[in-house]
Amino acid sequence: MKILIFLFLVLVILAACTPAHQKKTDSQVSEKHEWALVVHGGAGNLNPDDFTDEKEKAYREKLSEALSAGGKVLENNGSALDAVETAVRILEDSPLFNAGKGAVFNADGVNELDASIMDGLTLNAGAVANVTRIKNPISAARKVMENSSHVMLIKEGAEQFAAEQNIEMVDPGYFYTENRYKSLEQAKERENKNLEDKTKKSGTVGCVALDKNGNIAAGTSTGGMTNKKYGRVGDSPIIGAGTYADNNFCGVSATGHGEYFIRNVVAYDIAARMKYKGETAEFAANDVITNKLKAIDASGGVIVLDKSGNITMPFNTSGMFRGYLYPGDGPEIFIFQDNQENPNQ
Amino acid sequence: MKILIFLFLVLVILAACTPAHQKKTDSQVSEKHEWALVVHGGAGNLNPDDFTDEKEKAYREKLSEALSAGGKVLENNGSALDAVETAVRILEDSPLFNAGKGAVFNADGVNELDASIMDGLTLNAGAVANVTRIKNPISAARKVMENSSHVMLIKEGAEQFAAEQNIEMVDPGYFYTENRYKSLEQAKERENKNLEDKTKKSGTVGCVALDKNGNIAAGTSTGGMTNKKYGRVGDSPIIGAGTYADNNFCGVSATGHGEYFIRNVVAYDIAARMKYKGETAEFAANDVITNKLKAIDASGGVIVLDKSGNITMPFNTSGMFRGYLYPGDGPEIFIFQDNQENPNQ
Repeated sequence: MKILIFLFLVLVILAACTPAHQKKTDSQVSEKHEWALVVHGGAGNLNPDDFTDEKEKAYREKLSEALSAGGKVLENNGSALDAVETAVRILEDSPLFNAGKGAVFNADGVNELDASIMDGLTLNAGAVANVTRIKNPISAARKVMENSSHVMLIKEGAEQFAAEQNIEMVDPGYFYTENRYKSLEQAKERENKNLEDKTKKSGTVGCVALDKNGNIAAGTSTGGMTNKKYGRVGDSPIIGAGTYADNNFCGVSATGHGEYFIRNVVAYDIAARMKYKGETAEFAANDVITNKLKAIDASGGVIVLDKSGNITMPFNTSGMFRGYLYPGDGPEIFIFQDNQENPNQ
Repeated sequence: MKILIFLFLVLVILAACTPAHQKKTDSQVSEKHEWALVVHGGAGNLNPDDFTDEKEKAYREKLSEALSAGGKVLENNGSALDAVETAVRILEDSPLFNAGKGAVFNADGVNELDASIMDGLTLNAGAVANVTRIKNPISAARKVMENSSHVMLIKEGAEQFAAEQNIEMVDPGYFYTENRYKSLEQAKERENKNLEDKTKKSGTVGCVALDKNGNIAAGTSTGGMTNKKYGRVGDSPIIGAGTYADNNFCGVSATGHGEYFIRNVVAYDIAARMKYKGETAEFAANDVITNKLKAIDASGGVIVLDKSGNITMPFNTSGMFRGYLYPGDGPEIFIFQDNQENPNQ
């Protein structure tokens, strides 16, 4: 009897030795999804009152279209990389988001685009920054990853490489949209009056996919900040900050105030907490976004997908364009805070 | 008696619960240094036979000069940031290292410079990439950190900002050195003959400092890769890859094959292992450089300084220009593998 009590006590002590976040991992017996796909279209101060039904419908439909196209790739045994590129290209081609066609203007009235992509199988990665003539920067980033010995190419050099790789080039005028040009004019007016920009609009797009072979890929694409100066580069093309993928842990794409995301190495930090502390993707991502970054007034969000296909999409702004897709389901799209959102049920 | 045996067993079990690397931390009772300074001048295939006494002396003297100047700042209650900037500027001004004056040429025959700096107190950071007219890129990076709302500025935009900040600008011809131009010609010849570059030379410079107030700063500066194309950016200006600092853990500056250092988020990974696994700086840095990176043929090294002033300088090449300085001592300089090297005694 005493031996039994002793063994019981030993078990209690051993249990007490296991950190809480690891226990959480163990008790979360979630099925492994055959494939999974998650996208975002940027986090920001999104107010339902600013959305007509028509406007909301346009965003929902475009996010659905990106998810459906990427999901089709995955369903047909395509790679996570192909799914990410497919989905991000659709968002880049839409004027709704701050990436590709809908990119914001810099202070010189030019649309400067950044993008990156990472392969969770090989940890290979590619990125382009401050390009002005590449129609789909995500595809250029992928070419950098696959057909160069480099990770990051910038400006005219990146454009030259992309052109040599038969990536579609466009006249910079392609990126003109009246809406974004007005935003630049408003930003310049605020600047002249020393007024703070309270819109905190982002619109960066991103995607993370898990394919049937268990490979994870992540990609991010952006037009940066309206009225940005001096060749500013944000977190989107920085591996570890805006984008990260590792088959053993997760894929991450971030959106928000880029400088804070670089300084806090946000995308890799989430993976590192899973790797070194045994935290779940959900716990790690939530803590980074809603505690750590919120505390320093760093606005934004992330989409994270773990190796079982569990999805989490935390943000610390009033909204984030986001959605996910699992086999056999339809795309689930969200814009504002939503208590019904629960991807992992 | 049985209670005593039971309590003993409980203690044994609790001890077994503590991971080995944490035990290592606990048993390493090292004194806290009043201040500490460490520099590197790049890792590579450095062969003693290629060094005349005169050449070796020149490298040793320049590294000593950088350490002495930075040490003077720290001894006089200066900040870690000032010490890092002071030491890196001296290395940038020397033609011996691949940074500033001694920067290598890109494929277009231009010297394109990258640098970054990070403040471990505030986690603020600054970086410039692909600049061609800034004499001391480390000082421009610091201005980006302190006088802009951004972290990373590139190309002409970064130069415009630096000029507005009264950073010393030079004609690109300032960076011409015959030695580096010959290296470019040799690289182009190898490229034409499809020969691999086995020199694996780096020469990137970096510095990490701990000041009397317990603040850590880290900085890195480079001319990138000889014959680099397409606006390639390596790890040196990427926060988390080439440079990282956090007062609570460590400061890191890296040198080596930049693409691998970006993909493995090397600088932040070392800090993350200290933060999340309780590893010592020495254990974390050694494991990343000599196991993880070595296994994927990613050549290079890091200098790391923890919050107590413990210094570690692992590399997986045949040599790394490196040295450190503690209060009351003279600079200790090393180039090749050296069994006598033990900064923490």
